[in-house]
Amino acid sequence: MSEKVVIIGSGPAGHAAAIYAGRAKLEPLMYEGMFAAGVAAGGQLTTTTEVENYPGHLSISGPELMEKMREQSMHCGARIKTETVDRVDLSRRPFKVFVGEDVIEANVIIIATGATAKRMNLPGEERLWQKGISACAVCDGGLPIFRNKTLVVVGGGDSAVEEANYLTKYASKVIMLVRRDVLRASKVMQDRAKNNPKIEILFNTVPVEVVGEKVLSGVVVQSTTPDAKRSTIEAGGLFYAIGHLPNTSFLQGQLELDDVGYIKTKPGTTYTSVEGVFAAGDVQDKVYRQAITSAGTGCMAALEAERFLSEHH
Amino acid sequence: MSEKVVIIGSGPAGHAAAIYAGRAKLEPLMYEGMFAAGVAAGGQLTTTTEVENYPGHLSISGPELMEKMREQSMHCGARIKTETVDRVDLSRRPFKVFVGEDVIEANVIIIATGATAKRMNLPGEERLWQKGISACAVCDGGLPIFRNKTLVVVGGGDSAVEEANYLTKYASKVIMLVRRDVLRASKVMQDRAKNNPKIEILFNTVPVEVVGEKVLSGVVVQSTTPDAKRSTIEAGGLFYAIGHLPNTSFLQGQLELDDVGYIKTKPGTTYTSVEGVFAAGDVQDKVYRQAITSAGTGCMAALEAERFLSEHH
Repeated sequence: MSEKVVIIGSGPAGHAAAIYAGRAKLEPLMYEGMFAAGVAAGGQLTTTTEVENYPGHLSISGPELMEKMREQSMHCGARIKTETVDRVDLSRRPFKVFVGEDVIEANVIIIATGATAKRMNLPGEERLWQKGISACAVCDGGLPIFRNKTLVVVGGGDSAVEEANYLTKYASKVIMLVRRDVLRASKVMQDRAKNNPKIEILFNTVPVEVVGEKVLSGVVVQSTTPDAKRSTIEAGGLFYAIGHLPNTSFLQGQLELDDVGYIKTKPGTTYTSVEGVFAAGDVQDKVYRQAITSAGTGCMAALEAERFLSEHH
Repeated sequence: MSEKVVIIGSGPAGHAAAIYAGRAKLEPLMYEGMFAAGVAAGGQLTTTTEVENYPGHLSISGPELMEKMREQSMHCGARIKTETVDRVDLSRRPFKVFVGEDVIEANVIIIATGATAKRMNLPGEERLWQKGISACAVCDGGLPIFRNKTLVVVGGGDSAVEEANYLTKYASKVIMLVRRDVLRASKVMQDRAKNNPKIEILFNTVPVEVVGEKVLSGVVVQSTTPDAKRSTIEAGGLFYAIGHLPNTSFLQGQLELDDVGYIKTKPGTTYTSVEGVFAAGDVQDKVYRQAITSAGTGCMAALEAERFLSEHH
């Protein structure tokens, strides 16, 4: 027998979809993943400490918020398997979902596998992750540990400038580390960086190590010029802004993706290029990327899945 | 001095915008309204009892959820005024916001004034509202008081059929009351209603009174044919599905609206037809209309407002 709805992924988008699909009596089956894409079930929020911008919780830890959503999904009738989907066959309905030795048939698939922020895995990084190191300025920049400190942003693209700019609201100073001798960012963003007196740009510079006792206290940087000179920047924070990898390789090209690998959805909906397959959360969003926006699109996916099923059963 | 960001409205969209704008140090000023459009500050959720589909809260009352968001907005730096905006002038920036005798200048306006479900204000309705009477099947249909009961849906359009269909998941029977002798719904939706064995359609019939002690126990209906015959349907629930009124009259036509009065936004964004004016939540959404989707778009509006301000200051 085919499943009505299979949800792949277990961040805010996946759980919002599960809650709504469950309440609509679609008995959704969620594959929450077993360290899929290197992240625990629950998604990127499980790697954060305090979340202060999820409306409805003044302050809650990322893992606790995701545990609440998981409990709620099950309460609403979702079944959750802690396994990672290997691949899918979207060529005809019912679709096929391959998980280890199992093959599950599904009338609808909701993809909410998220994206993973790129990191450099510097010496010291694993120990100090989320103790001064982050990959999301908007998520974490407002935390007390970063206020009135010198902060380091790694990256030279539009979003690096945007993150640097955002951080100047809290930081005493923001230093951008740019590998090349120019910013890759657009002209208007370059100007914004240059006109912000709190931003300093170090060209031809990459981080090579992070230091600190219990929290980050400095970043060792190295010149990319032939002298390869090293020095240490005293800093209270390091923010990666070197892009994200959407978790779409398991699709093996069966859905339309953009040039970076994000699933293309019809704007303002969760429709993908294949009827009956919906995408929600960061796997289809490279602009907003917040827990609350992901949850919103997860809800949309479930409502659209429900409509689709009642039109095609 | 001009305000950076004025937020009009105080439902999930308004507060999500306030939380994000506050954390971005934009010192947002929110007009939460003083029974604007007949609804308390906090919006439509203040008229509901249990909310079980807001991801992150297994179960919470509508007023409590909105109180939490309000506290969070203030914690993030929003200032909240319990006044209703009378009108705005969007012809040039800074925009003008008129509130009683006051005129406030604003560089950005985020509109989150919501929509109000149409009701018939039948005899007995005020006393039994949310005690068996609702205007949102997806929000309330899963509540225990409605399970295995006969439920009445008022309306004959697409969304009435959709709500009736949704309710059959819980109800023993759903009776649709349709004023005319045909359904206004599209052919495919008409078929869906007719093919659902749990749905009965009463044409030429309108509700005229609701009865019940502590909760709704019956609906008095009347024929719209000349005999105007009355009878009573024993029912555990009455759901209005006769449309919503978006709260946009204060705009006096200064933003592009659709034919029903919803603000038009660029799909997948909160951009309106006027640069620097953003719209979030039900005032621009006649499809999803959930607390979580509204909050998602509120967050998007704040992020877009912030980008706009840093490009135009």
